[in-house]
Amino acid sequence: MGGYKKAEARSPYQSEDSELSDTSDVRTCWRMALLKNKLLNTVIEPVSTGRNKVTVVGVGQVGMACAFSILSDNVSSDLVLVDVMADKLRGEMMDLQHGSAFLKNAKINASTDYSATANSSLCVVTAGARQREGETRLDLVQRNTDIFKGIIPQLVKYSPDTILLIVSNPVDILTYVAWKLSGLPKNRVIGSGTNLDSARFRFLLSQRLNIAPTSCHGWIIGEHGDTSVPVWSGVNVAGVRLRDLNENIGTDKDTENWGELHKQVVDSAYEVIKLKGYTSWAIGLSIANLASAILRNSNQVHAVSTMVTGYHGIKNDVFLSLPCTLGEGGVSSIVKQKLTEGETALLQKSADMMHEVQKDLKF
Amino acid sequence: MGGYKKAEARSPYQSEDSELSDTSDVRTCWRMALLKNKLLNTVIEPVSTGRNKVTVVGVGQVGMACAFSILSDNVSSDLVLVDVMADKLRGEMMDLQHGSAFLKNAKINASTDYSATANSSLCVVTAGARQREGETRLDLVQRNTDIFKGIIPQLVKYSPDTILLIVSNPVDILTYVAWKLSGLPKNRVIGSGTNLDSARFRFLLSQRLNIAPTSCHGWIIGEHGDTSVPVWSGVNVAGVRLRDLNENIGTDKDTENWGELHKQVVDSAYEVIKLKGYTSWAIGLSIANLASAILRNSNQVHAVSTMVTGYHGIKNDVFLSLPCTLGEGGVSSIVKQKLTEGETALLQKSADMMHEVQKDLKF
Amino acid sequence: MGGYKKAEARSPYQSEDSELSDTSDVRTCWRMALLKNKLLNTVIEPVSTGRNKVTVVGVGQVGMACAFSILSDNVSSDLVLVDVMADKLRGEMMDLQHGSAFLKNAKINASTDYSATANSSLCVVTAGARQREGETRLDLVQRNTDIFKGIIPQLVKYSPDTILLIVSNPVDILTYVAWKLSGLPKNRVIGSGTNLDSARFRFLLSQRLNIAPTSCHGWIIGEHGDTSVPVWSGVNVAGVRLRDLNENIGTDKDTENWGELHKQVVDSAYEVIKLKGYTSWAIGLSIANLASAILRNSNQVHAVSTMVTGYHGIKNDVFLSLPCTLGEGGVSSIVKQKLTEGETALLQKSADMMHEVQKDLKF
Amino acid sequence: MGGYKKAEARSPYQSEDSELSDTSDVRTCWRMALLKNKLLNTVIEPVSTGRNKVTVVGVGQVGMACAFSILSDNVSSDLVLVDVMADKLRGEMMDLQHGSAFLKNAKINASTDYSATANSSLCVVTAGARQREGETRLDLVQRNTDIFKGIIPQLVKYSPDTILLIVSNPVDILTYVAWKLSGLPKNRVIGSGTNLDSARFRFLLSQRLNIAPTSCHGWIIGEHGDTSVPVWSGVNVAGVRLRDLNENIGTDKDTENWGELHKQVVDSAYEVIKLKGYTSWAIGLSIANLASAILRNSNQVHAVSTMVTGYHGIKNDVFLSLPCTLGEGGVSSIVKQKLTEGETALLQKSADMMHEVQKDLKF
Repeated sequence: MGGYKKAEARSPYQSEDSELSDTSDVRTCWRMALLKNKLLNTVIEPVSTGRNKVTVVGVGQVGMACAFSILSDNVSSDLVLVDVMADKLRGEMMDLQHGSAFLKNAKINASTDYSATANSSLCVVTAGARQREGETRLDLVQRNTDIFKGIIPQLVKYSPDTILLIVSNPVDILTYVAWKLSGLPKNRVIGSGTNLDSARFRFLLSQRLNIAPTSCHGWIIGEHGDTSVPVWSGVNVAGVRLRDLNENIGTDKDTENWGELHKQVVDSAYEVIKLKGYTSWAIGLSIANLASAILRNSNQVHAVSTMVTGYHGIKNDVFLSLPCTLGEGGVSSIVKQKLTEGETALLQKSADMMHEVQKDLKF
Repeated sequence: MGGYKKAEARSPYQSEDSELSDTSDVRTCWRMALLKNKLLNTVIEPVSTGRNKVTVVGVGQVGMACAFSILSDNVSSDLVLVDVMADKLRGEMMDLQHGSAFLKNAKINASTDYSATANSSLCVVTAGARQREGETRLDLVQRNTDIFKGIIPQLVKYSPDTILLIVSNPVDILTYVAWKLSGLPKNRVIGSGTNLDSARFRFLLSQRLNIAPTSCHGWIIGEHGDTSVPVWSGVNVAGVRLRDLNENIGTDKDTENWGELHKQVVDSAYEVIKLKGYTSWAIGLSIANLASAILRNSNQVHAVSTMVTGYHGIKNDVFLSLPCTLGEGGVSSIVKQKLTEGETALLQKSADMMHEVQKDLKF
Repeated sequence: MGGYKKAEARSPYQSEDSELSDTSDVRTCWRMALLKNKLLNTVIEPVSTGRNKVTVVGVGQVGMACAFSILSDNVSSDLVLVDVMADKLRGEMMDLQHGSAFLKNAKINASTDYSATANSSLCVVTAGARQREGETRLDLVQRNTDIFKGIIPQLVKYSPDTILLIVSNPVDILTYVAWKLSGLPKNRVIGSGTNLDSARFRFLLSQRLNIAPTSCHGWIIGEHGDTSVPVWSGVNVAGVRLRDLNENIGTDKDTENWGELHKQVVDSAYEVIKLKGYTSWAIGLSIANLASAILRNSNQVHAVSTMVTGYHGIKNDVFLSLPCTLGEGGVSSIVKQKLTEGETALLQKSADMMHEVQKDLKF
Repeated sequence: MGGYKKAEARSPYQSEDSELSDTSDVRTCWRMALLKNKLLNTVIEPVSTGRNKVTVVGVGQVGMACAFSILSDNVSSDLVLVDVMADKLRGEMMDLQHGSAFLKNAKINASTDYSATANSSLCVVTAGARQREGETRLDLVQRNTDIFKGIIPQLVKYSPDTILLIVSNPVDILTYVAWKLSGLPKNRVIGSGTNLDSARFRFLLSQRLNIAPTSCHGWIIGEHGDTSVPVWSGVNVAGVRLRDLNENIGTDKDTENWGELHKQVVDSAYEVIKLKGYTSWAIGLSIANLASAILRNSNQVHAVSTMVTGYHGIKNDVFLSLPCTLGEGGVSSIVKQKLTEGETALLQKSADMMHEVQKDLKF
């Protein structure tokens, strides 16, 4: 996958600064320039790069749901897609461009060449390989590390001040990998982490309580996926802690079995994948939510994967999700939750397992 | 496809009024009700159907892009998905639900049973078969008519005051079919028509002129697809008609070859499909744009497929796109464009061909 | 103020169904109809009332900030203003109408006659007298009750299914008054209450903690204004209760003096009024926030003034703010917070004082 | 008005970098820091200036409507207000801040000192004196020029890359004044011009035609106010020129008297001011519309006041409104409309009159 190469040119859809334009297009433009000159007087050349430029690497279902959510939520007005599959890439670019009149005239570009990503304020990375049958976790991570070697340095080369938002799985380890490969300070490399798990948890709470998801507060932290940790002590509605209404909530002793909600969160991805083949919408919306917090410099608190060395007794350099404030500088602070011994132990176990995998990675 | 049948129950994700809930869920809910009663006092049962309820029939790539665009643009806060494929349907519903905290708490439901669609203000129909190799156009339309027999009467049964917005292709004929099957007045049966073609045209103009798509005005009317008609006389920027700058624009005599833009519009769908396998984003955004005009009762003018009997010399009952004002009552008026003889002839030819197909359909 | 009377007609700005159109306008319209008929073919008359129609009574600074916030947040696309001051009313209507191209074509109307409000889904009442020097509280409330006699029955007459959202002060007593005058069930009469106080509290928390307001959770309940009650037990960031970090928070023993934040909340209105003469923006945004929860049927939890008989030991029929779920039916449930003895005593004291005033009111 | 001076400190509302904080606040912050340190670990200091930072100078009704529209439309998440009236300024700041939880956590600041405006991407200037009785136009312009001497160089000093958007009246001359005082290239100094006049015209068209304002296309150019020029040749709906339906439209020979619409546009400001005392909402929305086009780098076409030397036979350096494409660089091109002799003469007359006033100004 180091083999990202320049796509062959094809047709006259590209804007002039795109890597995919062809010569027949240039000729057409030149001819059409006669009318353009009759219509318009140029004062200055338009600025080519928007301040809120976002790059999305990978145009699979996840990458496209991220791109579309970012556009439809008006988080960015200047989006660049990157992938190695030039055809698919071009198709997705065109399909978005055709809708730009409905997207407040957002500028959409795509290229197999990273120079098109220059000066991005945020880069969202969704590219990566899936687990093969019989493949070990380490093998998968190594394969994705090799793919990231072709992506991360290129992104940083063209956008040295960017923030990296990693979505590819296993997200926590790959955020660590991206941090190592990027040379960026830790605050500027973020994993999408359990922001989505927390949203799923809040939806499930909302279903049980018949209250809007945004009014059901609950945080899932730690490793994104099977070993995530629901912090029951903080679950509340209007400041009323559910634990104060049911002291066993989330434990085995709970006769109301609220712990099942966390199991459903963990099962969510598997179930959606089983049913429709992949997940897309919720992760896309979750990424747009994080991108908005970052680009609007909002200081909102989100559960994202960040370097947790020194937190909750973790000693190694690993990335796990904790509640973080997000802004234009990336992660600016981390909320210190009071965890139970059991919750802390789960976090530490995840950290140890991740370190096990990470220490053998070849960069 | 008359065989839309009730899906088997599966898991505890559904809201209580959903067709897909199961008994174990009911038990869990009952147990959890203990805490709920400690937390909340019920004043009245929440209203179950939102005023802006929208149903989307068909959860393929087009249907889901429509649903997602409608939600992310906040056009509706109460969405129901319908399909015969219960698994896929459930997967898409869950994936959207997991993002509801990012969608201003929109309520998302799904069912294979049309009773879940009751009291929809708008029904978007994206279901339909694709052309088989060697199949005639009439055969395809008859197959889709048979599918519509299982959909349209059900929609109207549960939402007698709804507006039908048809997206399935060939959209103009299928809008006619939906009108016949629905028994609704013509203003309440609308085809997505050339709203998307016009958006593509405006994007292509914007690329040539380096002006935002929403500032490039141009209308494509007639049959959605290969035989659509660009009305060059109306193409303008800030009220400056391009034809006044280039009197041959859009014709064979034009040395700048602006007519190529229309060819590109016609080729767009083919090219996107060739490159990525299907079109989704632009049609989804286009539908959300129409849905917004309708549900906000805005009287905006859009090119949509409407009954054109009596317009531009057309005598048969056919649906073609013309600029129409849209509101809660559907199409309230049609703009009378001055067309050239050539443009009128193209429209009439489309109308004749469509009538040829329609007259042999079996309802 | 029972004397709301029909304004004299003035000029050709009004839409045809407005109370303010004049005959010269009719003549102009008739002449212009020639061109209109050349341009458009009518299919049906457009629907005149949008499903999300909102009426705002009172076009002072508060009423206009509410109206503008509701429009700019796209909560409603059909707004009607009502006031007795026909000139001011017309000026505000025209000023909003001139911006309708920037408000997604929202329809804006105004009238001194309540028939223009027919079929509103929500009515926001901001009208009312201010305290005169030396006037007792009872006298003020009686004066405003008399004003409400000219407003509330008229609103209910033309929109029997509406929800009333009362903003006029003293809001809790006037919500009671509106409930009595309206004959509506208690769930459909709501006071804006401490939704704004809570927003101010969250902003002040955000300033101290350098975290976004929406990530600082805290609820202020009870009587809107001087005697409101901050529920410190529920104040949290990411589920971390501040009380668990500072056990004396909000009390006199707190050496960090967090209780000052509540004092600042109480002083906010006074300070803003002293500095700029009135409050407008924050109350306007707060009302748009509630209107969105109601019209989108979201089941979000907000602190609003509702009938609290039976809650926290309150026995009389009074309205105070508690966290409530809001939807198209108004208040559907009330969150049962665990209050301290001190908090409960404050609520009861407010309730007793309000009952004292209410029992002598003449309806 | 050169006397913009530092406000006295007052109370603990200000963020730490504000000019208005006082020492008691600092002490409170220090005490509260104990809890903050228990709650949060700082990773980096948050970025203090957002990329989309906007300054609004002048907090009168127009300035505040601009500020509020920009915030509620999410055009900027970082707003600074500047004025010489410290009390009013502080009151408006606080009122907006109290609503920040409803404004996606936008950061709102205010200062009488221009250092708070540093690194603004856009500066909106609404400050200025009103005409005194008996005052000549030149006298008024000179007075406002003197006020601008205290504003414009300060803005440019702290934000050398900013774009200036002038709203103060007479807007065309004051945009020229701002250009001279700023030393900025002409593309970066823009007057709000006839963007609002055009919006009013489109609303009036929409009322006559019963079509949404955004579907009624018409441009008013030239001098903002009494001598503005409606370009009837470009007025169209769906590309259908009204002139093609009524060849005398806009002229004295028109029996349908459409020219009255332009008279109403001209009278609009006067009538609104007569009725409510000032104009605010529509100008605020118009400015947010321009700010969005600029900050999103959209290349949308708007009628704004720009340097028109060389256009339509104008020889002097004056600013008048023409349709311009807007983006991050300000005005990037100007649309060359075909004007009638009469329209051209009107523009030239405005240009001459403005030059008459400008040539005697003392800078």
